[in-house]
Amino acid sequence: MKANTTQIGRSMPRLEARAKVTGNTEYTHHLKLPGMLYGKIFRSTVAHGRIRSIDVSAARALEGVHSVITGQDILALVPEPYFGPAFLDQPVLALEKVRYVGEAVAVVLASDPHVAESAVQLIDAQYDELPAVFDEIEAMTSEAIVHDVLKPSGTFPDLKHLVGRKNTNIALDYHLKHGNAEKAFAEADHVFEHTFKTQQVMHTPLEPMVSAAEPGDQRLTIYTASQSPSFVRLEIARLLGWQESQVRVKVAHLGGGFGAKLYIKLEALVAVLALLTRRPVKIALTMEEQFYTITKHPTTFRIKSGVNKDGRIIARRCDVWWNGGAYADIGPRVTQKSGFTSGGPYDIENIDIESFALYTNRPPSGALRGFGIPQLVWAYESHTDIIARELGMDTLAIRRKNILREGRPQATGTPMRSAEIELVLERVAARMKWDQPFDRGSGTIRRGRGLAIGYKAVVAPTTSTAMVTIAADGSCILAMSTVDMGQGSDTTMAQIVAEIMDIPAERVRVLNPDTDVTPYDMATLGSRSTYHMGNAVKLASEDARDKLLAMAMDLDLPPETTPVPELFRRKYGMQAGTVVGFGSFVPPYAPPDKTNGQSENITPFWMIGGTGVELAVDTETGHVRIERMINVVDCGTPLNPAIVETQLSGAAIMQIGFSMQEKMELDAGQVTNASFADYKIPGFHDIPPVFENEMVDAHQPGAPFGAKGVGESATFSVSPAIANAIHDAIGLRLTELPMTPESVYRALRILQNKPVEDE
Amino acid sequence: MKANTTQIGRSMPRLEARAKVTGNTEYTHHLKLPGMLYGKIFRSTVAHGRIRSIDVSAARALEGVHSVITGQDILALVPEPYFGPAFLDQPVLALEKVRYVGEAVAVVLASDPHVAESAVQLIDAQYDELPAVFDEIEAMTSEAIVHDVLKPSGTFPDLKHLVGRKNTNIALDYHLKHGNAEKAFAEADHVFEHTFKTQQVMHTPLEPMVSAAEPGDQRLTIYTASQSPSFVRLEIARLLGWQESQVRVKVAHLGGGFGAKLYIKLEALVAVLALLTRRPVKIALTMEEQFYTITKHPTTFRIKSGVNKDGRIIARRCDVWWNGGAYADIGPRVTQKSGFTSGGPYDIENIDIESFALYTNRPPSGALRGFGIPQLVWAYESHTDIIARELGMDTLAIRRKNILREGRPQATGTPMRSAEIELVLERVAARMKWDQPFDRGSGTIRRGRGLAIGYKAVVAPTTSTAMVTIAADGSCILAMSTVDMGQGSDTTMAQIVAEIMDIPAERVRVLNPDTDVTPYDMATLGSRSTYHMGNAVKLASEDARDKLLAMAMDLDLPPETTPVPELFRRKYGMQAGTVVGFGSFVPPYAPPDKTNGQSENITPFWMIGGTGVELAVDTETGHVRIERMINVVDCGTPLNPAIVETQLSGAAIMQIGFSMQEKMELDAGQVTNASFADYKIPGFHDIPPVFENEMVDAHQPGAPFGAKGVGESATFSVSPAIANAIHDAIGLRLTELPMTPESVYRALRILQNKPVEDE
Repeated sequence: MKANTTQIGRSMPRLEARAKVTGNTEYTHHLKLPGMLYGKIFRSTVAHGRIRSIDVSAARALEGVHSVITGQDILALVPEPYFGPAFLDQPVLALEKVRYVGEAVAVVLASDPHVAESAVQLIDAQYDELPAVFDEIEAMTSEAIVHDVLKPSGTFPDLKHLVGRKNTNIALDYHLKHGNAEKAFAEADHVFEHTFKTQQVMHTPLEPMVSAAEPGDQRLTIYTASQSPSFVRLEIARLLGWQESQVRVKVAHLGGGFGAKLYIKLEALVAVLALLTRRPVKIALTMEEQFYTITKHPTTFRIKSGVNKDGRIIARRCDVWWNGGAYADIGPRVTQKSGFTSGGPYDIENIDIESFALYTNRPPSGALRGFGIPQLVWAYESHTDIIARELGMDTLAIRRKNILREGRPQATGTPMRSAEIELVLERVAARMKWDQPFDRGSGTIRRGRGLAIGYKAVVAPTTSTAMVTIAADGSCILAMSTVDMGQGSDTTMAQIVAEIMDIPAERVRVLNPDTDVTPYDMATLGSRSTYHMGNAVKLASEDARDKLLAMAMDLDLPPETTPVPELFRRKYGMQAGTVVGFGSFVPPYAPPDKTNGQSENITPFWMIGGTGVELAVDTETGHVRIERMINVVDCGTPLNPAIVETQLSGAAIMQIGFSMQEKMELDAGQVTNASFADYKIPGFHDIPPVFENEMVDAHQPGAPFGAKGVGESATFSVSPAIANAIHDAIGLRLTELPMTPESVYRALRILQNKPVEDE
Repeated sequence: MKANTTQIGRSMPRLEARAKVTGNTEYTHHLKLPGMLYGKIFRSTVAHGRIRSIDVSAARALEGVHSVITGQDILALVPEPYFGPAFLDQPVLALEKVRYVGEAVAVVLASDPHVAESAVQLIDAQYDELPAVFDEIEAMTSEAIVHDVLKPSGTFPDLKHLVGRKNTNIALDYHLKHGNAEKAFAEADHVFEHTFKTQQVMHTPLEPMVSAAEPGDQRLTIYTASQSPSFVRLEIARLLGWQESQVRVKVAHLGGGFGAKLYIKLEALVAVLALLTRRPVKIALTMEEQFYTITKHPTTFRIKSGVNKDGRIIARRCDVWWNGGAYADIGPRVTQKSGFTSGGPYDIENIDIESFALYTNRPPSGALRGFGIPQLVWAYESHTDIIARELGMDTLAIRRKNILREGRPQATGTPMRSAEIELVLERVAARMKWDQPFDRGSGTIRRGRGLAIGYKAVVAPTTSTAMVTIAADGSCILAMSTVDMGQGSDTTMAQIVAEIMDIPAERVRVLNPDTDVTPYDMATLGSRSTYHMGNAVKLASEDARDKLLAMAMDLDLPPETTPVPELFRRKYGMQAGTVVGFGSFVPPYAPPDKTNGQSENITPFWMIGGTGVELAVDTETGHVRIERMINVVDCGTPLNPAIVETQLSGAAIMQIGFSMQEKMELDAGQVTNASFADYKIPGFHDIPPVFENEMVDAHQPGAPFGAKGVGESATFSVSPAIANAIHDAIGLRLTELPMTPESVYRALRILQNKPVEDE
């Protein structure tokens, strides 16, 4: 590495910014293909039932309708039409049973989408209703069984033991044991136990999901707003029994993803429809339909801690129930991969974790910015606050006492390395001026402050590969399958190429993902791209640069100073040729022990996020006004500080929405507020007037130029920091999200009449 | 290399065959882009003139017209809007002058192409006419000067000496000298001199030229039916002053190219129009317009030989004038690269070659299947036949006596290696049963037979690069910029990949050229792809295979027997990952000496083609019926014999058209037969009823699996073999193409009244 970087640490504008503001950006929604049919989906109106009949005759008869396809029609093409990243449980269209209200049952195809939409209204399906279960705790013991038999996919060998399990809604039970928690509880001075809940929310990408498929000669091209083109190729090929090279997946820019656009969403459906009709088929969801497609897990988290008088936590037990909805999607991985941090960033000798992924009759849950971590931090950081108050300690002081320090083993046994937990905590405290007096308000406006800290491992082990092509004039093309969905990955990756090639990043062109063209990447998720793809891009750039140096040496030209055009002219006799560098990266990883979950190296890096909040509560209305929010993260050394800033703000605002206002309301499984009129995401007035971000001074070893991912870190601690501040303001402990004015007001009323147990 | 190949030498059906017959093949003509404007071209009606005025007001006023663009409008965007592969002489639209009838002067743009077409009729241009020159010999001395000053491009350093030359129509004068021809002529027993002429013809690809350009944010994507995507990118970037990575060139399948779709044709025009209008712009030519775009050089070839009594040729002088038309295109390279074989495949101690590329006021001439060789063979093989008859020798015997044999120096001094000239000649003779009696017909139907042999070097040095990507299931994707225009390159290259990777070729997917994706290739021309790209593809495949082997060894798996999916699972923990192999190939080459044109290695390989013909002439009508044609070539070891067969048939039939019927008729520079109604290409009835192809048993060292190019070889000798057979039948020597019934009839009448000199 050069001593002085010119492209790294540069807050350059995004490469695609100009195209976005001038309307030149390519989105899948713009795509029109000759002869294309539009599909509109007919959805289940019952939460759980056997399909008795589907009458599509009136829809088929409507003028302009090309065809109506049901699950039965698909069987002729795909005998086992089930997909999923962890479990092969989800049918392309419902077969025999429906498992949630909103499940896709049939599709109308027409050249005019409005005709298709009208025809959907003419379909009549009859169901024999079955008992349904919606709550994750009830699902543990309910007689309503969502899936007759568990069908883990072959993708993850560690799910093999679940194959064929029957009569259960538990899709995965994850256990981690470190030390002897039961013994330590018996010895502890105090034992605290609380239960926290989170609600079902949705990703609300402003670009709703959209996929199209174009049939070719023994080929299929899928155009999709997906975060995981490589997975889509693999899974569609598997589903069709084809080879990977017969399936091409092309991804344009995304208008947000947040985990909603991972794995298979509409891709299997459009693929099958295109092959059945031999026509290009496109399906674009409405905002409403997104609520029936993928959501964030509701959770129940029962947390129990054994604490000594001095505030030292010596034992912790975590029981977490993840409400996965009707189809597993990546839920079992959330249960497992986030499971092992359930105990929080604390140095606790004795820890027991049990984490359950549950099927229910809700819309499916998957990954949503944070991969389960915000649900966990919500619980353990509210719990920490309660313990401190119960012990009469300062909430910062109890954290300082218990925090996981460099080199100490995390619950899995993996020693913490390059995780600036303490520094993040101290920077939050310093910015909050925690040791100084605080204006607590008066009358009906009471002020409080709170803080919280969370951490996350990255999904491991995963692979990224990249390719850098140098043209004869020295400009570069970067081919990678990382999806730029607004997070700025095209720009930061171009900066890595530029740094290595010693050119301005503006001379690097980044290709949109296209599985025929851009090499394999696991997916754009879980803040993994900067580290994993960044490393692959760096290796590819170095490979290309080394080839140029070797070429210069072959030609007896000075390797460091010969301009690329001159080099190519000398090599090829004219301005011609291409040099290609390739990089492949898989981080070191030690799989956890099957019996106790222990691992020497459970993650290539840790993400740390801390939040400080000052707020005012109107005790007459329950309205909470966040006056100041501070988010501090360890993201290593930022590649592009301006982009990190917007990632931090975006993540925190999103989590403010989930903390304060968003909740999918269900009535017998039917989402009753599936629109932006009823389901309110944060607007400009919900953003705290003082809103600060900080990246602590850090450097991640093994990372490209010391940088690691940051897309999720500012989501971790937002909810408990707010809850802790509310408690600080009015002595009210909220244990369930969202903390709406109504819920604050109601709780306050209960509190004022008869105090709840934990106060 | 494995001892036994399974994929090489396999006459597998073409990979794209099914897509073509089912209508699934992608062609640029199908392309529609949102907001696209169609351009229609207003063309010059005078052959040479200064533009006095262009009145576009009526066209602009027509309802539905978006805009009308002239050369002056382009100057605002591109101050020097001239392009060309050898000379920067061709304006995007005419500026100040027009130089041929049909030259593009203005473009009307409209959303409806029919509106654009109507508006073109409303444009009125006035010219001050200048003297014009159409004949290549007259152009040598004419006072009509087509270009005021010569502007060779920087691409070819060997044209530098021409920069700034004025008052000449000679775009290139090429000289080659070997031995002392003048002295040898004086000593020879006989001296023969004849002059032969060829006519202007057109490539007539059944898919007419089409290009579209789509403006992006500081980017431009060009969709074009081009044989040279890498060149288009480079030249458009140069023209705009952009970097290469800002220009993307995408090529679909081509419906024939034959050299017509090389370099810049419509690409500069659509690029500029798209940038001026900020709209996608498409221009698709009609068949008629192709006649005004690029053609084959008319030539005059004066050939003189000094021959001893025994038939040994001891001296030869060749003077060749190439009629390049108004813009040089690649004409100067034809003059030079084909020039050095003007003396034929004969072992002649003393040889002088002079070859001139000339500007005239005809539509431009470029490369057409054979790159000038058929014009040369026409002359030297007719000449050889005349010499044999004059000396009373058998025409086969004189060739046997003089032929260039293995290791003997060619005119440039390069020793002939792996050039099966003799074997090709002998196989033609054997198939013709040359030593056996022949039915000569009777009455008004006279039969004759003839043979001829020609050879060609390949353009050198040029570069090809390729990339092979292996998916986790072992299927492969080949990324290369070779354009499949019907010659089957996708299939043969896939066979090379498959052979190295030890999989069926059907598991290889070949990407269409796309300069963002498929690495550099010089162009698809001159039968260079099998050898150059074949080598690059082989190197890329070997690189990929070696990486797999290394991966297996790293993992302690048996390298030869571990299946790819297993290897990837072990490496990446799941079915994931990509392995990419890269190959770059530039053949060895010795540039010719500047003073005498001598070189030790002028070409990486030689192509040889011989033709035998039996025909009948109707002396009452002049109609020539080719009853049997045999084409024998040395193409090394064929990769896919079925594809070679169709290449040979196609090339020979095309040359039959140029020999017997095709000719662009000009009246004051105006092509008067620019339609398939008037300009007849061969139909089924023109194909000889007995039509045989043979590939001699050969192996090209340094070539992929011994294979070399074959797209042109069967064009070389067709014309003189027919002419020699006509002479054999009726004693009539034709020296000018085409040999239409009318020309035969007229010549026969002249012959019957007063015999011409050489009979």
